[in-house]
Amino acid sequence: MDDRTLNIPEVVEEVRAIFERYEVALVEKDVAVLDASFWDSPHTVRYGMNENGYGFAEIHAHRVARPPGPGTKERRIRLEVLTIGRDLATVNLEFKVRGRPLVGRQSQTWVRFPDAGWKVIAAHVSTMAETPIL
Amino acid sequence: MDDRTLNIPEVVEEVRAIFERYEVALVEKDVAVLDASFWDSPHTVRYGMNENGYGFAEIHAHRVARPPGPGTKERRIRLEVLTIGRDLATVNLEFKVRGRPLVGRQSQTWVRFPDAGWKVIAAHVSTMAETPIL
Repeated sequence: MDDRTLNIPEVVEEVRAIFERYEVALVEKDVAVLDASFWDSPHTVRYGMNENGYGFAEIHAHRVARPPGPGTKERRIRLEVLTIGRDLATVNLEFKVRGRPLVGRQSQTWVRFPDAGWKVIAAHVSTMAETPIL
Repeated sequence: MDDRTLNIPEVVEEVRAIFERYEVALVEKDVAVLDASFWDSPHTVRYGMNENGYGFAEIHAHRVARPPGPGTKERRIRLEVLTIGRDLATVNLEFKVRGRPLVGRQSQTWVRFPDAGWKVIAAHVSTMAETPIL
């Protein structure tokens, strides 16, 4: 990783576009797009609201098992996209959980692979603790 | 990011060492080590159990405000360290939450900077949803 320039505009635009495509796929339960967004590797990790997925196969199984519906996001509170160089990005989204007085958080680490393009190598979705955990 | 070799043994060892140092600092509330582990940037994000920190200054303030104590981790369930090349790592830890029947998850994205060394650029700590969020 030689180039560590932050937030090169065209790289940020690329990442925002694939992120928005992913968000639409979540709502539409478009498993093909969800799968295409994640790195096809046994090392990929996705901690979801209700399950922990280790490796692409488990993550795929969680996608398939998920009931269709409008998704957990009622509205966005804050979206942060950071790119470092041309091959690494983090996306962090804070949101209001649909139908519950809860704040949700979604974190993704994206890597651009020479052959496969941008893929999520690690993701984590959660709500803030309902009662403080100290 | 030219070298995308996975899990080069000496790189994994480096990351495991700084991760363990961070974990000790959490328990000891060693703010200097906690601060030194995170990227000193307004772009750093840390979603904690009970708060969302945007930028190093907010994250530092959350460290200072945290009461001392044994920490939220009662025992480890699964630890996954992935390194890609020599400058990028993800660390994902699933754990039993102390004193509650909850599964915790901690995700970190580490980048090695030429001047500053390994730093967390994004982190997320949570529990799995107590009742499913769909």
